[in-house]
This record gives sequence, C-alpha cells and structure tokens, in this order.
Amino acid sequence: MLYSNKVSKKAGLPPGTLVRIGEKSSEETKITVIDYDIDNFQETIIHDIEDVFPYKDSSTITWINISGLENISIIEKIGTFFKIHPLVLEDILNTNQRPKVDEFDDYLYIVMKMLYFNEDDIDINVEQVSLILGENYVISFQEVEKDVFELIRERLRKNKGRIRKMKSDYLAYSLMDGMIDNYFFILEKIGEYVEDISEELLENPEKKTLHEIHYIKGEMFFLRRSVWPLREVVNNLKRSESPLINQETVIFLNDLYDHTIQIMDSVETYREMLSGMADLYLSSVSNRMNEVMKVLTIIATIFIPLTFIAGIYGMNFEYMPELKWKWGYLLVWIIIISLSSIMLVYFRRKRWL
Amino acid sequence: MLYSNKVSKKAGLPPGTLVRIGEKSSEETKITVIDYDIDNFQETIIHDIEDVFPYKDSSTITWINISGLENISIIEKIGTFFKIHPLVLEDILNTNQRPKVDEFDDYLYIVMKMLYFNEDDIDINVEQVSLILGENYVISFQEVEKDVFELIRERLRKNKGRIRKMKSDYLAYSLMDGMIDNYFFILEKIGEYVEDISEELLENPEKKTLHEIHYIKGEMFFLRRSVWPLREVVNNLKRSESPLINQETVIFLNDLYDHTIQIMDSVETYREMLSGMADLYLSSVSNRMNEVMKVLTIIATIFIPLTFIAGIYGMNFEYMPELKWKWGYLLVWIIIISLSSIMLVYFRRKRWL
Amino acid sequence: MLYSNKVSKKAGLPPGTLVRIGEKSSEETKITVIDYDIDNFQETIIHDIEDVFPYKDSSTITWINISGLENISIIEKIGTFFKIHPLVLEDILNTNQRPKVDEFDDYLYIVMKMLYFNEDDIDINVEQVSLILGENYVISFQEVEKDVFELIRERLRKNKGRIRKMKSDYLAYSLMDGMIDNYFFILEKIGEYVEDISEELLENPEKKTLHEIHYIKGEMFFLRRSVWPLREVVNNLKRSESPLINQETVIFLNDLYDHTIQIMDSVETYREMLSGMADLYLSSVSNRMNEVMKVLTIIATIFIPLTFIAGIYGMNFEYMPELKWKWGYLLVWIIIISLSSIMLVYFRRKRWL
Amino acid sequence: MLYSNKVSKKAGLPPGTLVRIGEKSSEETKITVIDYDIDNFQETIIHDIEDVFPYKDSSTITWINISGLENISIIEKIGTFFKIHPLVLEDILNTNQRPKVDEFDDYLYIVMKMLYFNEDDIDINVEQVSLILGENYVISFQEVEKDVFELIRERLRKNKGRIRKMKSDYLAYSLMDGMIDNYFFILEKIGEYVEDISEELLENPEKKTLHEIHYIKGEMFFLRRSVWPLREVVNNLKRSESPLINQETVIFLNDLYDHTIQIMDSVETYREMLSGMADLYLSSVSNRMNEVMKVLTIIATIFIPLTFIAGIYGMNFEYMPELKWKWGYLLVWIIIISLSSIMLVYFRRKRWL
Amino acid sequence: MLYSNKVSKKAGLPPGTLVRIGEKSSEETKITVIDYDIDNFQETIIHDIEDVFPYKDSSTITWINISGLENISIIEKIGTFFKIHPLVLEDILNTNQRPKVDEFDDYLYIVMKMLYFNEDDIDINVEQVSLILGENYVISFQEVEKDVFELIRERLRKNKGRIRKMKSDYLAYSLMDGMIDNYFFILEKIGEYVEDISEELLENPEKKTLHEIHYIKGEMFFLRRSVWPLREVVNNLKRSESPLINQETVIFLNDLYDHTIQIMDSVETYREMLSGMADLYLSSVSNRMNEVMKVLTIIATIFIPLTFIAGIYGMNFEYMPELKWKWGYLLVWIIIISLSSIMLVYFRRKRWL
Repeated sequence: MLYSNKVSKKAGLPPGTLVRIGEKSSEETKITVIDYDIDNFQETIIHDIEDVFPYKDSSTITWINISGLENISIIEKIGTFFKIHPLVLEDILNTNQRPKVDEFDDYLYIVMKMLYFNEDDIDINVEQVSLILGENYVISFQEVEKDVFELIRERLRKNKGRIRKMKSDYLAYSLMDGMIDNYFFILEKIGEYVEDISEELLENPEKKTLHEIHYIKGEMFFLRRSVWPLREVVNNLKRSESPLINQETVIFLNDLYDHTIQIMDSVETYREMLSGMADLYLSSVSNRMNEVMKVLTIIATIFIPLTFIAGIYGMNFEYMPELKWKWGYLLVWIIIISLSSIMLVYFRRKRWL
Repeated sequence: MLYSNKVSKKAGLPPGTLVRIGEKSSEETKITVIDYDIDNFQETIIHDIEDVFPYKDSSTITWINISGLENISIIEKIGTFFKIHPLVLEDILNTNQRPKVDEFDDYLYIVMKMLYFNEDDIDINVEQVSLILGENYVISFQEVEKDVFELIRERLRKNKGRIRKMKSDYLAYSLMDGMIDNYFFILEKIGEYVEDISEELLENPEKKTLHEIHYIKGEMFFLRRSVWPLREVVNNLKRSESPLINQETVIFLNDLYDHTIQIMDSVETYREMLSGMADLYLSSVSNRMNEVMKVLTIIATIFIPLTFIAGIYGMNFEYMPELKWKWGYLLVWIIIISLSSIMLVYFRRKRWL
Repeated sequence: MLYSNKVSKKAGLPPGTLVRIGEKSSEETKITVIDYDIDNFQETIIHDIEDVFPYKDSSTITWINISGLENISIIEKIGTFFKIHPLVLEDILNTNQRPKVDEFDDYLYIVMKMLYFNEDDIDINVEQVSLILGENYVISFQEVEKDVFELIRERLRKNKGRIRKMKSDYLAYSLMDGMIDNYFFILEKIGEYVEDISEELLENPEKKTLHEIHYIKGEMFFLRRSVWPLREVVNNLKRSESPLINQETVIFLNDLYDHTIQIMDSVETYREMLSGMADLYLSSVSNRMNEVMKVLTIIATIFIPLTFIAGIYGMNFEYMPELKWKWGYLLVWIIIISLSSIMLVYFRRKRWL
Repeated sequence: MLYSNKVSKKAGLPPGTLVRIGEKSSEETKITVIDYDIDNFQETIIHDIEDVFPYKDSSTITWINISGLENISIIEKIGTFFKIHPLVLEDILNTNQRPKVDEFDDYLYIVMKMLYFNEDDIDINVEQVSLILGENYVISFQEVEKDVFELIRERLRKNKGRIRKMKSDYLAYSLMDGMIDNYFFILEKIGEYVEDISEELLENPEKKTLHEIHYIKGEMFFLRRSVWPLREVVNNLKRSESPLINQETVIFLNDLYDHTIQIMDSVETYREMLSGMADLYLSSVSNRMNEVMKVLTIIATIFIPLTFIAGIYGMNFEYMPELKWKWGYLLVWIIIISLSSIMLVYFRRKRWL
Repeated sequence: MLYSNKVSKKAGLPPGTLVRIGEKSSEETKITVIDYDIDNFQETIIHDIEDVFPYKDSSTITWINISGLENISIIEKIGTFFKIHPLVLEDILNTNQRPKVDEFDDYLYIVMKMLYFNEDDIDINVEQVSLILGENYVISFQEVEKDVFELIRERLRKNKGRIRKMKSDYLAYSLMDGMIDNYFFILEKIGEYVEDISEELLENPEKKTLHEIHYIKGEMFFLRRSVWPLREVVNNLKRSESPLINQETVIFLNDLYDHTIQIMDSVETYREMLSGMADLYLSSVSNRMNEVMKVLTIIATIFIPLTFIAGIYGMNFEYMPELKWKWGYLLVWIIIISLSSIMLVYFRRKRWL
C-alpha cells in the first residue's frame, strides 16, 4: 500500500534521463488507437509505434492508449515525435508522482491515480495514469491494462452522449471523470467494511477489531493523499488559460470539481468515524477491565475476612474458650452469613453489583 | 445518517445523463404553482407539467414547487423548457450534493439541505432542496413533501411582510431562510439532549452514556458538514454579480449569513462540550477503578497478614510453646487488633479512606 | 452560561418582524439621555420616548441609553424616527447575536457582549449591548441596567479627558473601551481561580478538582467565543471608510485592537494552562493507582507464600515427620523470616519501596 | 511567570491617562544619554530630564536610555517634548504589552520583551523594553537596569563595526538584535535542562519528572508567546515605508528576521520533544504497572491453589482416608511441586517471566 | 541530532563579524575548482585562495567548491573578492541556518541542508551547504568533504546530459537536485526501519519498541524541519525575477519543486504511520494488562471461596456435627467441584476464558 520511493536508483543521473521507477509489471506494452470525429470511428491495435504518427496531423481526434511502461524506447519515440519535454517523459515512467497538471505551450500533462479495490484483503491498489492532451489528440499511459476506460470506449463506439461532438479536451475530461467515478465505488466498498467493523465493535469488540480499525484508517490516509492533490488538478484545469481547454468543457470540469470535493468529504467522514470507533474500542476495553476488577474485588473482599475467621478457630491453643461452647460453631456461621450480607448490601449501594 | 454514496451506479455513463441517485421515496411527484405580484395571488396544484410553461413569460412572480424526484421525465421537460443545463438536472436528481451555488447566465442553481429531527431516536434526516432562481420565477425541488415552506406560503397568501412586494430573489431568500431557521430548532433539540447526557454524566455515568456521547458527536459532525458549505453558499450569493440578485435583497442575505455563522458557532460549542464530556466520562471511569482498587487493597492488606497469624497457630507441631500459654489466645487477639488498627491509621494518612 | 438559541420561536416569521429573543428580565425599560458639547452638559431621564426626538437634529452630541428590551414599541418608535433598518431592530431584540459591525449609509450598528462575573459560583454572565452610531448621536441598548458605563458618564459630567471635545464616534469608542476593560477584570478573577486550582492540584488532587478544571475550561471556551469576533469588530471599525469614523479616533481604535489581542492571548494562555492541569491530574491519578497496586502486591506477595507454609503444617496427616522434630517450629519461623527478608530486598531493588 | 493582567485598575480611566501597570520595582529612574556621530562620542548620566532636550535638534545621533518606569512625571515630560502620542506613553508604562510596532509620522514606537533566565529555578523573567525611534534619536525605556545593552555601548565607545557610521535606525536595530541574541542564550539553557530531563526519563522516571516536563512545557508556551509577535514586529519594520528606516538597514532587519524564525523553530522543536517525553513517561508508568500486576498475578496464581490444597488436608473430618496413608504427605508435596512447575512453564510461555 | 544553538557566543558582537558557529570538524579547508564550457573542462585542487580569482572574469562557468569552514580567512578573502555581503559570510560560517534564498543584485545566496544517514544507529547527520550563484560561477561551501556531488562532477567530466551546455544557474540547480535526490535515499532507509518496527509490533511488542517508535518519530520531526523550508526555497527560486535564473532552468526547478512535495508527503506519511503504531502499542499494552487481570481474577475467584470452605472444616470446635458424618469429607469435595464448575461456566459466558 505504501508509496515505494525507490527513486534512489535515479540519484545523480542527469535530469530527463528515462528510467522506469515504480513497481514493475511483466505485461507487454500494448498500444491502442481510437480515431474519431462526429461521423467516423476507427479502433486499431498497433504494434509498431511509428504507425501512430500519421494520426497527429489528421483533423480527427485521436486517442492513443499505451498500457505497460516497461518498454522505454516506445515512450522515447513518442516523446520525440510529439515533442514532449524529457522531464515529462521521466515523470510518465516514474509512477511515484502525485496527481498534477503541467502546462506547456502545445500540450498539457496530467497525472492521475487510478485506484483498484481488492475485496479479499480490503486493499487499495494504485496505478498511475498520465495523460498528454494535445490539440487533437490525447495520449494516455497506464501501468497495466485494466478496463476502467472500457465504458468510455463503448460511448465512443456507439456515439452515446456528446463525446464524439466535442474536442480532445472533452475526451481527457471523460477519462478523468471515469477514474474519479471509480473512487466513489471504492468509497462505497470501504463504507460497507467500516459499517461491519462498527457493528462488530458494538456486539463483540475483540483485539483484532482494533487492528482492523487501524488498518482501514491507514487506507483512508492513503486514499486521502491521492485525493487531495486531485482537487488542485481539476481546479487548475478549470482555471487554465490554455487554449486547449474550451469554454464548453469548463462546466464539466466544474462538475468534476464538485465530485472531488464530495470524495474528500466522504474520506474525512470515514476518518472521523474511525477515530471515534478507536476511542470507543479503547474505552470499552477499560470498561471491561473495570468490570473484571469489580468481580475480583467483590469475591476477595467477601471471602478474605471470612477465611480469617475460620483461620482463628483453626488455631490450636489449649485455652480457647469458644471452642468448647456448645453453640460456638453455629455462632461462627451466623457471623459469617451476616458479615457477607452486610458487604453485599454495601456493594449494591456502591452500584458494583 | 451517513451520506450514502451510491453514486457508483452512474459510473461510466455520459455526464448529463439523468439518473435518480439517493434514497428513493415512494411518494408521487406533486407540482404546486404559486403565482403572485403585489395585487394578485393564485395557488394551483398542477398535474400536467406543461401547464406550468405559460407562467414563465408572465410578469408576475411564479414559484413552482416540485416534490418527489422519482419521475425523471417531469424534471427533463422542465429542464428543456426553462433551458437548464443537463449537469444541473443531473445534480437535482442526485441528492448526494453538497450545498452550493452555480451561476448561469439567466438563472442561479442553489443546492441546500433541509434537516428534519426525529425526536424518538434523536436522528437527523436530510432532504436535498434544489432551487432554480430565474428572472421572475423560482423552481424548488424537494425529495418528499414536508411542510417547512408552509409558513412562507401563508405569508404569500396573507400578503404578510414585504414578500409580495419583492422580486423572485427575495422569494428564493425566503425559502433559504425558512430552511436555515429550522436548523436553529434542531440545534435546540440537540442542546436539550446534550444537557440531559451532561446531567446523567454527573449523577450516574454508565456505559451507555459514552455511547450516547459518541452517537451525538457523530450527529454533530454530520450537521457540521451540512452547515459549513452553507456559509459559502450564502456568501457567494451575497457577493454575486448576477443581475438576478437585487441590491435590496443583499441586506437580507447578510442577515442570513449571520445566521449561518451563529449555527456554526453553536455546532462548534456542542462539539467542544461533547469532547469535554467524553473526557470526563473516561476520567470518572478511571477514578472509579481507582476506588475499587483501594477497597480491594485495604481489605487484602489488613486480612492477609492476620490470616497468616491465624495460620501459624493452626500448625500442628508438637513443640509449639505458645499453644500451651494461658494467655496465648488472648495475646493473638491483641496482636490482631493492634495490627489492623495500625494499618487503618496508615491508610487514613495516605487518604485512602 | 450556554447561548440559548431559543430562536426557533421566530421560525417562519417574515424577516424584520420584531420579536424579543433571549433571556427575559423583569426590568422596565429606562431611557437616559446625555446631551453635551465642549461647553454644555445635560443629563435627563426620559419617560416618553418621543421626548428624545428633538435631540437628533441639535448640533450637540447626544447619548441615548436604553436599558431593558422588553418594551418592543419603544424600540420600534426609535427605529422609525432614526430610520433604522428593521433587520437591525430585529438584531437589537435578539440577544443571541455574535459581536459584529454593520455599516449603513448614515449610521453604524455595533453589537458587543458585556460580561459580568459572579464570584460566588465563578460564573460569567453576558449581556448584549447594541450601539447605533449616528452623525451626532449614539444610541445604546442594554438588556439590564448595570453600571459599567458609570465611569464614562462621570467623565462626561466632569469633562475629564478629551471625551467632550470629540465627536460621537469617540463616545462609541469610549463605551466599547469601557466594556473591553471589564474583560481584563474578569480575566484577572479567572486567573486567580485557575491559580487556586493549580495549587490544589499540586497539594491534594481530588475528584472535584477535575470537575473544576473542566468547568473553568468550559468558561474559557465561552469567553473565547465572545472575544474572537470582537477582534474582527474593532478591526472592521478601524478600517471602515464610513465618514462617521474620524481620523483622530482611529488611533484609539488601534489601541482597542491591541487590547482585544491581549485578551485573546490571555484566554489562550489559560486554556493551555488548564489543558496542562487536566493532563497532570490524570497522570497523578494513574500514579496513585500505581502506588495502590504496589502496596497490594507487596503485601500479597509476602504473605501469600507464608500463609501457604503455615497451611502445610496445619495439615492433619498422621505421618508428617517435621511435626515431631524438636526444632521444627523454630525452623518454620526461620524460613518465614528469611523468605520475607529476601522479598523485601527484591522489592527495594525494583524500587517498589 | 504568567503575564499579570492587573490592567483592571485602569478600567474606566480616559484613554491616554498615564498609570504605571505591571510589576513594580523599587529602582529609581536612571537616565543615560549617549550622543555620537562618526567622529564624536559622549556618554552622560543625567539627573534632570530637561537636560536631555537640547540633544534633540543636534545633528548627532542621541540614544537616551531610561531605566525604571515608576517616575511618571519624567515619562510625561519626555512625551511632551518629543511630541509622543499619549496612548504611546500609556503603553510604555503598561508593561503587559505584546511586542508590536506602531508607526507615526515622525517616529516609530517599538515594544520588545527582554528575557532573563534564572538558572536556580529555571525561571524566565521578562522585562518590557520600549523604543522610540526618531530622526536622529532613539529613546529606550527599561523596567529595571540590566546590562544586555552593555555590549552595544561598548561598540559605540570603541567605534567597533559600522554602528557609528549609520543612522538612528541602525542603533534601534542593534538594540533589538542584542535582545534577540539573548533569546538564543536562554534557548541553550533550556535545551540543556530538557536534555537532563530526557536522560532522567530514560534512566529513572519519577513522579517529579512529569512535573518538570509540565513546568518546562509551560515555560516554552510562555516563550513562544513572546516570540511569535516578534516575527511580525521585525517583518513590519522590514516592510515599513517610513522614511526612518533606511535601505541599508533593511538587510540587517532581514537577518534579524531569520533569527526570529530560528528561535521559533527551536521553540517548536522543544515543545515537540517535551510532548514526546510526556507521552513516554506515561507509557513507562503504565508499563511498570503492567509489571507490578504480573508479579502479583504470578505469586497469587501459584500459591492460592496450593494453599487450598493445604487447607483441604487441614480439615478435621473424622473420615478422611488420605490422612491415614503412609505416603499421603509426600504425595501432597509431589502435587504441589508439579502444579507450581506447570504454572511456571505456562507463564514463561505467555512471556510473563 | 538536535540543532545546537551555540549561537550565544556571538551575542553582542557587531552583525557581520565572522565567527564559526556549529559543530567543528578537524578537517582542513580544501578548495576544488572546476571550470568548463561546452568544449573545455578543467579540474584543479587549489591551495592558495587567490588562485581562484582569475576565474571570475573568464567567460567559462566556474564551480568553486570549498569544504571545511574552520579557516575563516579564506572565507573572508572570497567575500572581499566576489563582493559578498558580510551578513552572507556570517551565515555561511553559522551552520545553524534554515534553508533559504537571499537575492542580491549580482548573486543569489542559497542555504541547503545535506543529509547523511548512519545505518548503524539509524541517525541522520546534517551538513549545511551554502551556494553562491553568480553570473558565471557557483561557489559551494560544505562543512566536511563528502561525495554527494561526485556524480555531478562525473557528469561534468564526461559531458553527460545537458549540464555543460547550460549556464551557472543549471549547475546550482544540479547541486540542489543532487542533495534532494539523497533525501529519497534516506526516506527509503527510514521506510525500511519503520516497516521492521511495524512487524515487531505485530509479533512481539516490547518496551523497547515504543522507544524505537519515539526515536524515529523524533528523526522524522527533524527531517520535516529540514524539508519544509526547502519547498519555500525552490519556490522562491522558481518565481525569482533575478536575471541569474534563466527561463530554461525554471522547468527543472519545477521538477525539483515536485520532488520536495513528494518528500514532504512521504515524511507526513511516516509520521502518521508512527503515530498509529504508538497508539497500537499502547492499546496492546492495555490489552495485555487486561488479560493478566483476567487470569488473576479467575484463579482468585475460584480458589478463595474454596479455601474458605476448607478453612471452615479446619476449625477446632468441639461440637461440629459435620466432622463426624461418614460422608462429610466426600460432600465437601462434591461442593468444591460443583462450585468451581459453576464459576468456570460463568467465566466462559462472560468470555473471560
């Protein structure tokens, strides 16, 4: 879950040197190109990166999706052809980036985090998605091939909604929207888990409950770190003066901005709930300790004096007049019973029983 | 109580697709139209949404109240007729919005939260109210039909106050004012409950007291989340340069702004009080534990040595000179009594008794 | 002490409706008029509110003090005559306001909180004071008649300082200054009380000490809420561009501003001290528990094994050779004494004794 | 140590009335005048305040140092001669001010806190120093005569550094620099004390350790309150547009600003360290409690069952077959030894031993 | 680890006096000069500081690295020759500076912290590096000679990357980048250590675990203090309007800025993790205490009443009928066994077993 900062292997290299940093995946690099305008739609899987280049100058919108970042030479060629700054290429390959937008003269570079939820171990996996938004193209870079974008492809294929009527900035917005919608899904899943723990806490708090609370709190902290910069990203895009962002798209970015705020809100709510739950757990532990102590105290307080009395008459002194009394034994029992009754009444008064 | 983010079912749909998100209610959509100016007043329940359209171009102020959001086609028709942006319609149907204001060229879109208090289970229910403020009309969208607006209708009917002399912005203000006034009512109820818990805490703190504190703390957190963005909403309206907000209304918005600040103030006060109460509870638990420990320690410390003494003279050695002494038994009692007296004095000195 | 938000009774009334909200007092409304310039001074108690009106257009400065807010019609008449906005009148009657300044074209409306300290129950009482600062008049509204302003009246009567040489804004400043000076007095009283608790804590911390700490912490929170907005009020006045605030007065407002900062500073200091004291109390409780535990453990650990030994030789087996030994009994005592000595040494090493 | 707000005795007096507020000292007022330019230097102790006045219009720089504020008439005369605003004089006499800068047309008024460290009781004493910076003079007001400025006098006398080449603003800067340098000294002393406590905590944490931590935390809070406004003071001077601040001095003020930041940094570091230490202390207390509990539990758990066994065979039933067995007594010992061995193994497994 | 503020020895000296403040090292001052442009490269170790001067006016870029700050006269000579302000020289020698940038007309002064990690005692060492960035030269001042810059020298020698094509600002950037890259390395090391502690905590939390957590928390606090001002430094450079910073370098500074944000992010993450771990430790301690208490209570609660019963029949009364019963002894056993069975069932119900 933790951001692995294995950035050190780059230490000392000249800036702009392309090195793959981040968790390696064994997947091969796969390039898909979707080229469209209102009337046309074409989808191709490309094997040679140079086949992509002709699309650049066509008047249609082109979406180039590259999944798998292990093949550095492909990234390098794209960089050279689309005139992308070496530092941007470096950031694409280093998947430890925070979400951000960098504006350049003829393209925008957007870093996002795509989250996947693993229900088995309640774990959140992150994948970095880099977007290059140019005048009539969008290039997206994914670490592995997963289908969060499938629904957008479907919309493009079937010409649903306004997507094929709009410019490349709307496509970039759609991709970001797709990723952020997925955050809601993850929050729901976590919400369910939090509710489960909450019930467990009320019914039967166990040692592992606290560990679960701490674990999920850690996940929320992690989620929060992915979400906070997101707000800034969307806000920067919204307010960008780049000619690449059209006025019609701004209203959609506004909507996206509202979504990021909602996500942050939910994250904060869960964090607050989890803190409350951890507090409740601790006080339920100390309450239980209190109860254990009371039981011990009651038992000990009643029987220790009684045992003392029995001990007295177990002594072997030759001259112990009580031992010879006819009703001595009965008397001892009377003392014992009244003493313990008095104590029980006392404890009841103190509300220990 | 928790914001249910069942937004995931929308994931991947094109933005602007109308889908009802939020808790469903079985109520039918009901449309009420109130049309007025200084001299005229007309109130109608309408069954066919198209009957509403003629009001738009009349010079009178029209308030269209729509309660029940399950019938999407009605919302859609209104959207088309009043030229409302599809993203706004989407937000009207998605009742997980945060309070906000969106300004458009010829209307303002305001999202508010209406709160209802359920005294039986001290629960706060939320309903989203969306307002569309146009040049001479206000459209309000409620999830269910409840009567927080009845008092405003009454004022309109009886021409009380200045409401019928003012423009549509004053009507929108009045609706917002009505909703915010209701927050004060809820805060009073919660205040009473907090006071009850506070007394319970002083008199007889029980395990459930802490649960109550935590529960009400959760509610306050929830309330706070509804109130914080509200301040922003009223502030934005106040400072809006939209021609829809007239100068005379600004002073009323100022007043409303003061109210939201007062509400936030109270919410913060209750949160602070509840934190203090949780702390007191915990320290009263540990104080009680301390007392239990003292009782145990006193009893054990007094009787354990005495029992040991009794044990000594219960031994069966043949050669135990003390056992034969005439005053041996009496001596043992003297030792026992003086020993326990010394210890009682010691405990009193240590302020354990 | 808590701000009673009985604002709900106003819910739904048209804004600007005059309703008295806040703690009622049985006092009658009393109107005092002081009219002065450098050379003249006149002080009258007035019974009919209309007698006040002629003063408005005179060139002298007029201070109208109204104590007791139950007689709404008086407020209403003043409002009409001095052309005060209905929302301001509403705020004068609603004594749950936060300190604030509202600027209007020909007057300023200032809300302040006057604090009184009740030494018997260490309780702070609040009274709302509203000031209307007009061109050559100041109207002050108090809930009850108390003499915090007496010293200012005295200065006016005896022409002490510069007060009679200055304009109405200086009078308003003087009233505010008088109220804020009184805060210092209350802080001193609380400071003394905090010091008392602090000593109590060091010498003999009891259960009630914690309650006192929590109580006074609550008072500080309350005080803080009255003081924080004050700073804003003075700052707004200082920076106001209203022609009612003269340049010579600004330097006095600067001084007042410094005072509010000093007050906030002291409030924060006391809060910090009280937090430290609560922490110390809790750790002294757990320290004492620790000590109690040690005593119990030492006693039990020493005597339980000894009692076991005595128990052994209290058994009634026929064949127990030790019982017949001449020095058996002595040996048992030797064992007992050496065992307990070893344990005492052990405890001393562990620093339990 | 606490800021004594005995400001209440001024309550109700006209603003600008000169009253001495703060801790009184018995020292007499002493006036020293140092008059210099590049070539000349003259140092005189003056008894009649009027002897100071001729210096004002000379072209040389004059530093008038007044220590002891009990003689109000001297302050008053200076105020009249140098045309200082009465509110400034009032602030000079009220030594409860926070550090601040007030700009006037022909002078600046600077309030600073001079700190002295008392090593015996680790106590920080504060003295207020007020500076009036005029065109070619600086007047400094101290509560008592102490020698933090001696080094600066030395530099003036011996013409060390650039001080005699610069204007009066550089002199004021030098005095402030001297006071702030002294803060570093105090921080070092406190640092040493903190380190001592830290070691004590690791080696042998005692009850008094916590009190020491709390005490020093209080001192840090106090220091912080003196330092925070300082930053603002230096920053305001730096950015001041007053002609009294020359461009060459700004770079020195920048340096001073860096120093205040460093001081705040150290204060925050010590606060953080002390918090960590308080946490460690508390957890070491609970760790020790844990250990005490374990010892008790081990002893009790081993011997209570054994004592029970001994108790059984101490019963006096006539028909107890075991009592007659030849090896009965031996058997009991075997049972006792094996039982206690099992328990010891069990505790070792649980890591209690 | 703690910032030693031995600044006091400078107290009272005129500002700009050169005094070496900070940890002394015994190393001799070593001066290395690297002079290059695209085509030429020359590296020399210089013994006489005056040999450096001719490089100043050459058109090539000159990097003068001075390691060892004990020889003040060298610093002084450089200062005079390169016209560096005395306060800057003072800051170079005082290695207690915070990271900062000071802009002068013809050079920039940058203070950075270089961190070294000592794996043996998990300790972070700091060295201050001062950079003077002039038009065609960079002077770097190190406390001791260490090789974090070796990789940059290598790049210069072998003409790798763009470094020899760029101006002096790019060299300064490269040095800063080199130092910041090293921070990632340290964070990784700390990350590993944190993970180790985290595992230790889950498997076998010991007393020393908490000390380790506190220790590493202190280190993180320390790191954070070095990193926070860094962000400001890079940001100031980025936005600087100094002609020394060329437009092409700004994009690299942007990248550096992203790195500082990433570092701060990681530091915050570790701090959060460590706080969570400290909480977990404490609750695991109290959980264990709870368990110990339960064992004690179970044992005591079962055996104390049984011992009492045995005590009863160990009494020596002459008239105790049960003692004569044939089945008395058996009956006692039956009572004992059923009593303890009932209690065991009771504890199991309470989930204590």
